[in-house]
Amino acid sequence: MDTFDLRLPALRAAYREGRATPRALIGTLRERAAMLNPDYRLFIHLLSDEEIEPYFAALDEQDIDALPLYGVPFAIKDNIDLAGVPTTAACPAFAYMPGRSATLVAQLIALGAVPIGKTNLDQFATGLNGTRSPYGKCRNSVLANYPSGGSSAGSSLAVALGVASFALGTDTAGSGRVPAALNNLVGTKGTKGLLSTAGVVPACRTLDCVTYFTATAREASELLALTARHDPADAYSRANPQWNDAAAFGKIARFRFGVPRQLEFAGCDESPALFANARAALEAIGGEAVDIDFAPFIEAARLLYEGPWVAERYSVTDVLLETQPGAVLPVIRDVLAKAPGASAVDAFRAQYRLQTSKQRCDAVLAELDCVLTPSIPRAVTLDELERDPIGANSLLGHYTNFMNLLDYAAVATPAGFMANGLPWGVTLFGRAFTDQYLLSVADALHRKLAVPLAGHARHDTDAPAHAARDDRMKLVVCGAHLAGLPLNGQLTTRGARLVEATVSAPRYRLVALAGGAIARPGMTRDEANGAAIAIEVWDLPSAEVGSFLAGIPAPLALGKVELADGRWETGFVCEAHALEGAVDITRYGGWRAWLDRAA
Amino acid sequence: MDTFDLRLPALRAAYREGRATPRALIGTLRERAAMLNPDYRLFIHLLSDEEIEPYFAALDEQDIDALPLYGVPFAIKDNIDLAGVPTTAACPAFAYMPGRSATLVAQLIALGAVPIGKTNLDQFATGLNGTRSPYGKCRNSVLANYPSGGSSAGSSLAVALGVASFALGTDTAGSGRVPAALNNLVGTKGTKGLLSTAGVVPACRTLDCVTYFTATAREASELLALTARHDPADAYSRANPQWNDAAAFGKIARFRFGVPRQLEFAGCDESPALFANARAALEAIGGEAVDIDFAPFIEAARLLYEGPWVAERYSVTDVLLETQPGAVLPVIRDVLAKAPGASAVDAFRAQYRLQTSKQRCDAVLAELDCVLTPSIPRAVTLDELERDPIGANSLLGHYTNFMNLLDYAAVATPAGFMANGLPWGVTLFGRAFTDQYLLSVADALHRKLAVPLAGHARHDTDAPAHAARDDRMKLVVCGAHLAGLPLNGQLTTRGARLVEATVSAPRYRLVALAGGAIARPGMTRDEANGAAIAIEVWDLPSAEVGSFLAGIPAPLALGKVELADGRWETGFVCEAHALEGAVDITRYGGWRAWLDRAA
Repeated sequence: MDTFDLRLPALRAAYREGRATPRALIGTLRERAAMLNPDYRLFIHLLSDEEIEPYFAALDEQDIDALPLYGVPFAIKDNIDLAGVPTTAACPAFAYMPGRSATLVAQLIALGAVPIGKTNLDQFATGLNGTRSPYGKCRNSVLANYPSGGSSAGSSLAVALGVASFALGTDTAGSGRVPAALNNLVGTKGTKGLLSTAGVVPACRTLDCVTYFTATAREASELLALTARHDPADAYSRANPQWNDAAAFGKIARFRFGVPRQLEFAGCDESPALFANARAALEAIGGEAVDIDFAPFIEAARLLYEGPWVAERYSVTDVLLETQPGAVLPVIRDVLAKAPGASAVDAFRAQYRLQTSKQRCDAVLAELDCVLTPSIPRAVTLDELERDPIGANSLLGHYTNFMNLLDYAAVATPAGFMANGLPWGVTLFGRAFTDQYLLSVADALHRKLAVPLAGHARHDTDAPAHAARDDRMKLVVCGAHLAGLPLNGQLTTRGARLVEATVSAPRYRLVALAGGAIARPGMTRDEANGAAIAIEVWDLPSAEVGSFLAGIPAPLALGKVELADGRWETGFVCEAHALEGAVDITRYGGWRAWLDRAA
Repeated sequence: MDTFDLRLPALRAAYREGRATPRALIGTLRERAAMLNPDYRLFIHLLSDEEIEPYFAALDEQDIDALPLYGVPFAIKDNIDLAGVPTTAACPAFAYMPGRSATLVAQLIALGAVPIGKTNLDQFATGLNGTRSPYGKCRNSVLANYPSGGSSAGSSLAVALGVASFALGTDTAGSGRVPAALNNLVGTKGTKGLLSTAGVVPACRTLDCVTYFTATAREASELLALTARHDPADAYSRANPQWNDAAAFGKIARFRFGVPRQLEFAGCDESPALFANARAALEAIGGEAVDIDFAPFIEAARLLYEGPWVAERYSVTDVLLETQPGAVLPVIRDVLAKAPGASAVDAFRAQYRLQTSKQRCDAVLAELDCVLTPSIPRAVTLDELERDPIGANSLLGHYTNFMNLLDYAAVATPAGFMANGLPWGVTLFGRAFTDQYLLSVADALHRKLAVPLAGHARHDTDAPAHAARDDRMKLVVCGAHLAGLPLNGQLTTRGARLVEATVSAPRYRLVALAGGAIARPGMTRDEANGAAIAIEVWDLPSAEVGSFLAGIPAPLALGKVELADGRWETGFVCEAHALEGAVDITRYGGWRAWLDRAA
């Protein structure tokens, strides 16, 4: 049992092949969890036999293959509702009994997943270390003198210690990424609103995200694709554009990633080399590193605890703080102390400052596919936290605090170990709704670095077969849209960038089309009589392709074009009826050469 | 001069044909403005000869055709900076001398437009009536016992009284729409962030929009297309998606418009018939009216003055209010009085309520192309405003207050006159970035109702030639994407809706393509041997078309397909090379019939 692989594909295979049943397997996991709990304090509430039985019973009637998450054990951070089990947010005085599960929990259960317990957290999800809980301090999964990280402390431990396949955390300022970094896990803080927060105790309701802890990025991709649905019960829920669907997770090729010019390691002498190693691995798998100015990101981060967003946290607990102040941990009271004094004018002024930072940060991201940072500047010990509970905690949020304020998606990914054995990680972040792309990069990096997985699992050796996809797409042009030609503005006004000038596979004919105000060619595939045609590959926002397509008149169309290197990309093709009688100009090798023929 | 048509196309023709010069024409307009000002109080500052001369001089060196707005006179609300002329926001104690013009003003001047003066407004743009100014009350352009409406009071009068071709207003709660309604103008409150607000005195900075007052919607379309540019100097600036470019302004065909089930006319006995008339006109030009629940919109509206957004206004004037309270009009002081007491917690809680309303309102709009409302419940007289300065003002905002909070675009359009001669209007509103579409509907409605134009101008008789475009687009499918067939989910997961099942023009062949996991047809135009092929027209968000196209494999492509009624829509076509050797199934008349052939 000790080496049982709990990753989704491994578990699925085990059930399918009859090597395990949910009752038996999860029974063992619950025993292990009960055994670990006195040391790690990961669970606030482990489901009893009576509580878990209905979930097993529901599976009894189901076909394994009918449920994508059949019998997959998962843990739930105790600020997320599970029907019939108290939600505490790590504050017993705040506890309530939810009549229904959070939307996301209900989705997972309907997909076949089995909840095993509610996990420990920094009280009210306010903290990044995992020690701010009356249910005990969560120690690190590897080293006893370090914290688990938080606030999603117990959820990270449940996966790292191999008692759940995945776990739900929440992340407002880094709570789903910091503990992932410290416990050798992938922590996926998706785009705000992608996963429902209905049934989650708010920290900052305008910023809160639910997160997944998994051993691998591929599992997170699958979970995200299964559960990213618009939820009318969550006012902050957003529809996921289809460029960010399951198929967007794939093989990455050439990409540009930002690296902060100003790196903060807080005196750690091992982290710089670990970070350089991760950067080199990204370069080795096709990434081009671009130095970026990190100041506007840090500026945005400062607003989170120095600014009026603390008022959002206060708004959740104000009644409790006023009636039973002693029920709230002193350190949390200290964090919230500034909130009642903040005015609405302060709140709006802070939003103006944030918006100014966001414009600067967005401009940086517009030129990149993603950004690479360490997940934390350095780890802090339990002793350090004891001595400086606020300062040591704040240090952990250096690379995470700005993310939700700026509306970016982020994936914390394992990237090695310190000399003492402590896990060490990096974070990849990017524009909203590029989650599956970021997971693709994280997956490739994770496999390239060959970091041993948490929970005794093994990496898949096979990379995804098709190309990954973000919120931009490539377009092959061969005529009037070429750089400098009359219709090129239809691309540049849409934010398109020239990626490369190359040629097609030697299997196309080019004709000069008759009619039209602007001379245009038609390109058509011809295995027998074709040649390599000069083309350009442009890259433009996926959201702008529709209006571009709308403006293309017959007989031209956008289909798929094969390039010289065998890639197929979306590009201009021509309908058959227009080829008859058109002048064949294939021998010129391209539209520019044809236009220049007289010269 | 009295009947000179100041509309952009008329003015352009006059300059081109030598019937006018900027110096002479604008000289006359300035004389008229000076003559009107004692009665109407529309200008706070009319440019002096010395101040205006540089703008004329700049035109002297230019070719008329090189500048789209060559010699077009425009007025500027006095909360928008014009270099070298004081900005007062209708508060002399607040006045400052701007060293540079607002981004938008500079854009317009660079395009050839000539600023003639700074216009009167409700102090700090706080008001909807036009009487809250130490520079005098703005009376209505038609009836002396009614106000102009505000806060962009003088700007509306400048166009209505024929001293400017267009004018700039601002609109946070209705300030660009209410005065348009009361003065027979088109008032365009575009999508937030579409026009730069850099150099504008904020009212509520998170909500403020600059607006255009014009005689016709077509002029507003042209101005918007010329000036909607991302401005790095404005943190709230947003890039305009290209489906909302100049070409999106066009002919409207079939559309669905919402009409509030709960209409408020505040006891007016003429407005119901005027509104019914506008509704009937929309139906006559192809609109299908849909009753909608208006409660969530009104709920959102209430937040604007009852909630903490007043704190945004207060944050602009706080120093002045504290040091020289007497410098601010008592009614404005009353409005702002609640602000200092509002807490950051209040501000966030109000944002949560707004977000909840927004989700409900967005769901209503998702099913519609636009919504039709009256622009105001009824007009109020100057006497009423005197008696109840806050209540009578609030009444005017019933149909306007929610718009910016909900991030919608809106166009106030003339729709007739009361029996006493007072102009009466409706507002068309819709999703962000459908501005040009809304202007297309407004233009068609305006022409259909044949309302005489302000400023002695005449309607264009010609409708735009091409189809208008909003943020969705039509897609013709003929194979595996048909309703109920295997790939239809690629449409429905993107929010596509079936518009109609029909047939193509009788000029297409259909073949069954070889290979592929899913059987697919290819459709190809063939004038000689074609037939009418059964197709479906779907409608999906333009932003989702790119990812849909990315998933289409060769030899299929998206081009243009001719329908039975002669329309051309974007749809599936097939490359030539795949037609050879494929089974011709044209005689079945469609893919379904072919699939059913065995039955």
